[in-house]
Amino acid sequence: MFSPLIKELMESLRCLPGVGPKSAQKMALYLLERDSQGADRLACSLRDALDKVGRCGTCRTLTEDSECSICLDQERDQTRLCIVETPADVIAMENAGSFDGRYFVLLGHLSPIDGIGPEELGLDRLEKLVVQASVEEVIIATNSTIEGEATSHYISELLKPLNIELSRLAQGVPIGGELEYVDGNTLALALKGRKKL
Amino acid sequence: MFSPLIKELMESLRCLPGVGPKSAQKMALYLLERDSQGADRLACSLRDALDKVGRCGTCRTLTEDSECSICLDQERDQTRLCIVETPADVIAMENAGSFDGRYFVLLGHLSPIDGIGPEELGLDRLEKLVVQASVEEVIIATNSTIEGEATSHYISELLKPLNIELSRLAQGVPIGGELEYVDGNTLALALKGRKKL
Repeated sequence: MFSPLIKELMESLRCLPGVGPKSAQKMALYLLERDSQGADRLACSLRDALDKVGRCGTCRTLTEDSECSICLDQERDQTRLCIVETPADVIAMENAGSFDGRYFVLLGHLSPIDGIGPEELGLDRLEKLVVQASVEEVIIATNSTIEGEATSHYISELLKPLNIELSRLAQGVPIGGELEYVDGNTLALALKGRKKL
Repeated sequence: MFSPLIKELMESLRCLPGVGPKSAQKMALYLLERDSQGADRLACSLRDALDKVGRCGTCRTLTEDSECSICLDQERDQTRLCIVETPADVIAMENAGSFDGRYFVLLGHLSPIDGIGPEELGLDRLEKLVVQASVEEVIIATNSTIEGEATSHYISELLKPLNIELSRLAQGVPIGGELEYVDGNTLALALKGRKKL
């Protein structure tokens, strides 16, 4: 019952994560009825971002510059490198506020079924970066999922011959977590990794 | 920590209803990392819709044609007109499937504080339409809210001199509604409008 262009707008809004047919309809009508300025701004910024945003030449995070602001920051510890899966993970680490080294962003994890191998994650570049920037410690902070663990394992095998300090984020009970509600696997890991007092 | 273009994309995604800063970040990164095709399609369809979608010359609903498909449909009863607030309301009425007349879409309701008066809702056009198309019955189906009721009242006063049948959607207990959970105002209206058996 909507005209073709409005239907097409609804369809294309569904590419956004978490947007189903009902929300897409609401969004499309809202933009056309009440916020054509916002829609115009969104169309422009989508086009701009698509045309100009690429990857940082050093850490591979998303940016429109040749190097991202963190890589350009000379104040940061150049000898420590933290490997994360996505730019959102960089933000999470920065918000935690206890790491002042640099990052390497994989933009994904190993997933042979989707055709994502070491090359797609830029692991050859990672190896070169570690050697060239004389990195002393690499912290692997991929997600604590099966794919993240597999990626972490692959990277650790890759970097072992370089004779640098290699570490993985600790696993255990999260702060504020009540034992009753922590899943068994996490609890088993927390027990295995218990610390002497 | 994000580059300016990515930040601008996140900001502009927030014009969508129901999208806060966290979802906007997720959407922007998702589009840039994984679905540049979808983002491109969205940018194009936004631009197209903005440039071409206007209002139906007869019923004022959103469409890129000079007249919408419902107004062009000669099979529909031309003597009955249903007045609704938005294009989404047209869809709701059509899905209910018991009205085969035509619509008039206000694209809003009277709201003097936002500068929306009779002119913005096209009520002068409504009056002309009712006369020219020799409409015999007008059903006012604005929302059952304070603003919708005020708009309904204004329209009924406007159309009364034209000597046509005027009606308003019935108010009462919704199908499947349990009395225990129906609010007092609705219940009072349902009691007032009780039907003889």
